[in-house]
Order: sequence, then structure tokens, then C-alpha cells
Amino acid sequence: MSKVITPKEQDYSKWYNDIVVEADMADHSAVRGCMVIKPHGYAIWEKMQAALDKMFKDTGHVNAYFPLFIPKSLFEAEEKNAEGFAKECAVVTHYRLKTDPNNKGKLIVDPEAKLEEELVVRPTSEAIIWNTYKTWIQSYRDLPILVNQWANVVRWEMRTRLFLRTAEFLWQEGHTAHATKEEAIEETKKMLDVYADFAENWLAMPVIKGVKTANERFAGADDTYCIEALMQDGKALQAGTSHFLGQNFAKAFDVKFAGKDGKLDYVWATSWGVSTRLMGALIMSHSDNNGLVIPPKLAPVQVVIVPVYKGDEGLKKVSEAANDIKKRLQARNISVKYDDRDTQRPGWKFAEYELKGIPVRIALGERDLANGTIEVARRDLLSKEVIQIADAENYIAKLLEDIQSNLYTKALERTKANTRKVETYAEFKRMLDEQPGFILAHWDGTPETEEKIKEETKATIRCIPLNNEQEAGVCIYSGKPSSQRVMFARAY
Amino acid sequence: MSKVITPKEQDYSKWYNDIVVEADMADHSAVRGCMVIKPHGYAIWEKMQAALDKMFKDTGHVNAYFPLFIPKSLFEAEEKNAEGFAKECAVVTHYRLKTDPNNKGKLIVDPEAKLEEELVVRPTSEAIIWNTYKTWIQSYRDLPILVNQWANVVRWEMRTRLFLRTAEFLWQEGHTAHATKEEAIEETKKMLDVYADFAENWLAMPVIKGVKTANERFAGADDTYCIEALMQDGKALQAGTSHFLGQNFAKAFDVKFAGKDGKLDYVWATSWGVSTRLMGALIMSHSDNNGLVIPPKLAPVQVVIVPVYKGDEGLKKVSEAANDIKKRLQARNISVKYDDRDTQRPGWKFAEYELKGIPVRIALGERDLANGTIEVARRDLLSKEVIQIADAENYIAKLLEDIQSNLYTKALERTKANTRKVETYAEFKRMLDEQPGFILAHWDGTPETEEKIKEETKATIRCIPLNNEQEAGVCIYSGKPSSQRVMFARAY
Repeated sequence: MSKVITPKEQDYSKWYNDIVVEADMADHSAVRGCMVIKPHGYAIWEKMQAALDKMFKDTGHVNAYFPLFIPKSLFEAEEKNAEGFAKECAVVTHYRLKTDPNNKGKLIVDPEAKLEEELVVRPTSEAIIWNTYKTWIQSYRDLPILVNQWANVVRWEMRTRLFLRTAEFLWQEGHTAHATKEEAIEETKKMLDVYADFAENWLAMPVIKGVKTANERFAGADDTYCIEALMQDGKALQAGTSHFLGQNFAKAFDVKFAGKDGKLDYVWATSWGVSTRLMGALIMSHSDNNGLVIPPKLAPVQVVIVPVYKGDEGLKKVSEAANDIKKRLQARNISVKYDDRDTQRPGWKFAEYELKGIPVRIALGERDLANGTIEVARRDLLSKEVIQIADAENYIAKLLEDIQSNLYTKALERTKANTRKVETYAEFKRMLDEQPGFILAHWDGTPETEEKIKEETKATIRCIPLNNEQEAGVCIYSGKPSSQRVMFARAY
Repeated sequence: MSKVITPKEQDYSKWYNDIVVEADMADHSAVRGCMVIKPHGYAIWEKMQAALDKMFKDTGHVNAYFPLFIPKSLFEAEEKNAEGFAKECAVVTHYRLKTDPNNKGKLIVDPEAKLEEELVVRPTSEAIIWNTYKTWIQSYRDLPILVNQWANVVRWEMRTRLFLRTAEFLWQEGHTAHATKEEAIEETKKMLDVYADFAENWLAMPVIKGVKTANERFAGADDTYCIEALMQDGKALQAGTSHFLGQNFAKAFDVKFAGKDGKLDYVWATSWGVSTRLMGALIMSHSDNNGLVIPPKLAPVQVVIVPVYKGDEGLKKVSEAANDIKKRLQARNISVKYDDRDTQRPGWKFAEYELKGIPVRIALGERDLANGTIEVARRDLLSKEVIQIADAENYIAKLLEDIQSNLYTKALERTKANTRKVETYAEFKRMLDEQPGFILAHWDGTPETEEKIKEETKATIRCIPLNNEQEAGVCIYSGKPSSQRVMFARAY
């Protein structure tokens, strides 16, 4: 094994990158800021997609697909949204290449194939979708529209990091239309709950549900709800957002509906999304210096069986037992890989699956077989146990549940231990540097103070937690009165 | 019901478009040549994806994801491929918009944000993928690579038609790398078989497997295999292609591997794809003047239950029975929708589900209930039968199988009836106009003759069928000797 992960204590950022690359999750591409998602990484993303897609459908949503391109005139219709994303837009200006007359075998952009109107590569799809909804919605009978799409989007980021911030990324974006404000707000919160449910029960990642301040709102939203998670280095990661868009897009695109009383009104909107960023969240929630750790519910392979043997005869005997165990585990809906490649030694395979985060590894040797036992290693604790083959499926089914809940508990304890109340700005700044985490502090409620704190400390208000305790205090920065603490952190 | 489908005898092209739009499959968008895939259409596409994805995985493939953009210098590396697609490329030239100083609220492309190198929006991904494979492949141990990706691609077509030819479309593209020519050719043919299997057993669409002539080959391929299907108007539709790429991309991107003997050689490649074009194939294979007809295996909803009742009490009684039937059908893995909306009358619902192609409709009335019967209508034959409720799940499970095989048989008979041998060019031309279909005719094997026939008749050689009968004859155009018939048609 030549693959080595930089210890996170030494260089957290390098540790993260090493895991992404060495565990075959993703890699940089020839295109600035764009990544290649490799098969092992993509398989985890597929598990996330499947779980989320089922949750969306169980809450009444259907999928559809809207164009990749947005004509500039549509893109600019909702001004705040357009302004918020304008600086990050990849723009298609031409629709043809031609051979370079001065350079054989090379191509140039054909100047005669200039588009009359430039096309923006979608950074988010509100504009093109609401322009479409206009044709779908006439009366209250056409509402609600509960649509989601799985798609790629492009935001031209200057500083990119694999999964966390890439120029192109994959995501889902829900776009719903409602007859009343109340129903739209209910939808916004419902989808936030779906995201929190997914984060906690699939990603094994505890999250804080909250609402963003005006400064941190999605461009074009009246309110942005979010889930925030704490990574191992004490920085926050926004893991999902759900926006109440009010009537902003309906007004920009003139989308009205006739109510039961025949009166025309603008439609109410929400949008909500999570992205391949969640892959970064998964890595930074659970992984260690040996590599990736995947929560069993999102592992493409939950159990790997590695044979330990001498000669063909030995392999044959071991394989028979291994395949029997594999079948018994599969009958319990456990995904199993039996790795009987003869091109690599067992020690190499152990290290490889550890690096790739496979939750459970079974080593099956000839001697074990004689004793009716196998060696079972769990990835999260790096511990091993010898168990009876006869009991394998019960033991391992239980073990996978244990690993899932252990990962969650560990992350929850880490998050709690690194969530602190702070009373003064000096303490706040010291804490950010020395004990980074979620910081609960009083704030005077003004964008100006928020901006100053951000400038001086790089910390932002991650959210105002839902059901926040009301408590009189004074702003750590301005000393002005405050009625509640908000949650600060430095963030990804 | 105000939705009316133009009869296909009157205007086939309008009939097709009416079905796509009125059955809520897709619609035109604000972006030239790009479509919106609506929920009903997308749900069918999801069924196709799931079936194909399983077939790919069962044949050892894994999914990954590569960038949307291809730097121009990479795109032009494989010259034939580049030349073949250059005329259809959407090109990103800038990465930022800014507010228009002369026009409040409007945006312009920021001239200072011009990319150093233009980015091509992928029309196909060989270039970016082989540039990546270069870093993945060192030795024979790294081979084969069996990767697929589900993605959107853009080809700037001048004449577009919903699903059949759109500027942006969704597809899957497999890209494999092999140590030997034989293995790559085997893979190419294997995936052609997978496509044919899918077309016949899921789409209920008979296909001819064959190989393209040099003129019709994929740009950059040594050989292109294809499946061709015959639509109801006698025109052919290429439903899937599988390319043997030789070492062309390996040479363009310098991808070599060390064999077991340590010798370096270029890697052998294949690529293969099917797209949302299959949605057009589905429509034109089975639909009628009442609307869409979906093969049961691809229907998002296989059975719809419509209650016929008077008053709340009536609905309550009928609903109890309907929900019981629904449960019993679901237990047999049949997807069922119970439509108890009170905003629409039963007759409206009948027409709606007929238009949308739902394979089986159950009408359940109070009187039926008293008799212990239901009325079952099958979409393909538009026939109805009254059956015993007690026998519902067996009857309907069998009925769905019948519909699936009936659709296939009907399409097969139509294809056979419209496949004809022709001996002279005069007969060939008359046939194209009067009895369009697949035409088997002798051809002298030259690109020149093929080109002339295309110019004069708009018919192309769809393929040279696999396992083609060898038979001496003379070319219908040039009179030169020929050893086999090839398959001509006008095509989509």
C-alpha cells in the first residue's frame, strides 16, 4: 500500500483531500473547478439519491426535468436572484466551432454562430421553472405543484474544493407552487424536516435546524431555512436549505391563479435543495486517519469478505464457506462483496477496504473454517472479534445497526461538546481560534453588526435555531439589547 | 375533455406532437430546441433508467460522473470525433455577468470575464473521459474499466422535435477500456444485445441489430453497431448505438498500459448510449388516435381505479372495496393508483387515463359492488370486460402480461409486414413513397452510391443486419455486383 493519508491533526485540509482522492471518491479534472466523481464516490451518491428520492415521493413529490440553459432575459427577471448569482454564471455565447484556417486540426469558435441572446448555464433553476409554471397554472385546481429535479448546476466559484465547492455539482432542487402563503411555509418546513431526517438517520450526522438571517438568505427568498452540521475541525457545514420564496418569482414571471372565488392572485413558491456537498459532509463527519468511514445505510458494500488461504485447494474450501455466508447475508438485505482476487494479498485488501470505509470486513481463513469461526472487523472502532459462522447473519445485521448508531452518537457528542455559549466578543474570538465549534451568542439583530463580525473574525451566523430559547442579553459586539442567542461559526 | 389528438392518418407529425404535449410527457421550453420533460414523461424515463441501470450493473458496469464542460484543446484531440461534432457545439466563453450600466435591472456578459480557453458543453464525453482514463490506467491490472454515466448532453440541432431531436437531451453513455481488441469488440456486441433485450422485453419494440456503413459511423469509431426500429409511419428510428472505438481515443490521449509481459500498448475502447429518444420510440411504436399506450413494464402506474358513485355514502362503500383491490394488486408488485378526486367526473378520468396510456383501468361502481364485479378496460385493445372482484389480482397480473406481449407481437407483425425486398431502383423509390418501411436491397458497397441514393431519395442505409444472409445480386443503383442486401429506410 503506497496510499497514505495525511493525519488530520497535521493538516486537516490535506487529510480531507487525501481521503477524497485516495479512497477513490472523486478527483480533479482538466476543467477548472470541476470534479470527476469516481465509481466508489458515485455509488455512495446513488445511495443518497435513492433514499432522498423515496422520501420526496413519500411526501407527494414527482420528478421532472427542465433545461440546462436559461436565456439571459429570463434569468434577470427576478432581480435579487439574478444579482445574487450573476457573478458566478457560465455563459454560452456561440453554438458552433469550425476548423481553424490557420492551424490544421484545430478548432475555433465560429464568429458567425453567435447567439442572438446569451444562455446562462443554470446556477439554480427558479427562473426557467417559473417561466414554465406560468403555462401550467391557471386555477387553484392546478395547485399545488410538487416537483423535484435531479440535475447538474454550475456556479463559477473562484476557490474550489472537491465535493464542498465545485464549479459544477450535482444536486436535487424541489420547486413547489401553492395557493396560500401558509401552505408554502408548511412545505418549506416539511422539506427541512425531510433533510434533517435524512442527515440524522442516513448520514448519521446530527444537524441544527434553523432559519438564516437576511444577510445569508438565498437570493430571491423571503426566508431560508437550513440544516447546519459541525465538522471534525469545528467548522460548520450548511448541509441543506429550504426556501420560502413568497410571491417573488410569481410576480417576476407573472404567474397568477384563479381561486375558488374566481379572484386572481399570485402563486406562492418554495424551493429546496441538497447537493454532492453532502459527500463532503459524510467524509468530515466520520472519517479518521485510516481513511473514509461510511455509515452502513449509505455504504454501497456493507460487508466485504476476504479469504485467507494457501493454494487452489485452500481457496476452494474457503470460497465455499464464503459464498454460503454471502448468500445468508444477502437474504437479510445486506450488501456483500466477496473479494477472491488472486492479484492482491489479504493484507493489501484489508488496508484497501479500510481506506474505502467499508463498514464490516470478514476475514475467513482455513484455520477459522476448521473452528467454525470468522474474524469480523468493524470499521468505525477498528476493532475485531471472532464469531461463530453459524451466527453470522444475526451478528452482522446487529453490528451494522450498532455501527450506524455509534457513528451518530459519536458525532452528536462531538457536536454537543463543541457547542458553547459565549458572553463577550473577546471570548468569542478566542473561542473561534482555540476551541472552534458552534458558538451561541447574543446579537443585536442588525445586518451591520453581523457584517462587522464576519469581516473581523470570518465567523458567520449559521442560523437562528428553530424553537430557539428566548433570553434577554446584550449583543457581544454592539452591547445593544438582544432577545435570543444565535448560532455562529466559521463555515465551509 | 378539450384535449384532442390529431388522427395519425391526417397528420402523423402533428399526431406525434399532440400526444407528447397532451399526454403531459414533455413540452417546448423558452430555450430554442430544449424541452421540459413533464412529470408523466419523466416517470416513464425513470422506469427506463431503472431497468437499463440494472442491466448495466448485472453485466459488471459501475456508474461515475464526468464534467459537463470539455476544454476546446481536449475536445479537438481526436480529430474525427471533433470534426463530427464541431458544428453542433454550444460554447461557454465567459464566466460572469454584470449589471448593465445603461439599463437598470438588466445584465450583460462581463467582457473582463472571458475564459482563456473556451469550454465546449459536452455533445458526448469520449474526450473528457479518455483524458481522465489516462490517469487511471497504468497496467493490465487496471483493466478493464467498465464505466457508465447518466448525463445531459447538448447538440445544437437546427431542426428539433420533442424527444426525437432536441438540443439538450438526457442519456447514458458507457465508456469502457480494454487490454485487447477482441475483448473490446465482445463488449461492444454485448451492450448491443443489452439494448436489444431492453427494446424488445421492456419497450415491446422489435429491433434489427446491425452494423453501420462507414458513412453512418459514429465520428471516431472503427465500427458502429446499432438497433433500428420501425415506426408506425414506416420510418426507421435508430434506438441505440454501441461503438467499437479501436485505439483511436487511446492514441489521441496517449493512454497506454503495461501488459503482463511489461510491454506498453494503447488501450482499446468502446462507447455505447441510449437517450430520451427512446421516449419517442415508445410513443411511435404503440400509441393510437386516443393517445399514448405504455407497455405495462414501463408504466409508472399500471392500473388506475376510478370510483363511480353517488354521494358520500356511496364513495365510502366503493372506496373500501377499491382500497382492498389496490392492496391486493400491490402485493403482486403491480403499481396502482386509486383516483378518488371529487373535482372530476368518471368520464373525464376515463378519457384522461386513456390519453396518458395507463395499461389497465378499473371502474368500480356501487352496482358492480353489489354483484361482486368490476369493469376492467385494457388500453391496448380499448376493450372492456366484467370480472369477479375475488379473482382481480390473478386476472390483472395475467392481463398486464398479455398487454405487454400483445404490444410486442403487434409491433413485430407491423415491422415484418413493412420489411420488403426490392430488386430495382424504380421499385425502391416507389416503395419509399407508397409503402414505406425497411427495404432490403443490394448495394455495391461504395460510399458514393450510398450518398447518391440518400441525395435522391432521402433514404439511408440503416444497417447491415448482423448474421446477414449472403446472396449474390446487383446493386439497385449502380448495377455492380453485390454479395448481400442491406437495410434501407427513411429515418428519424
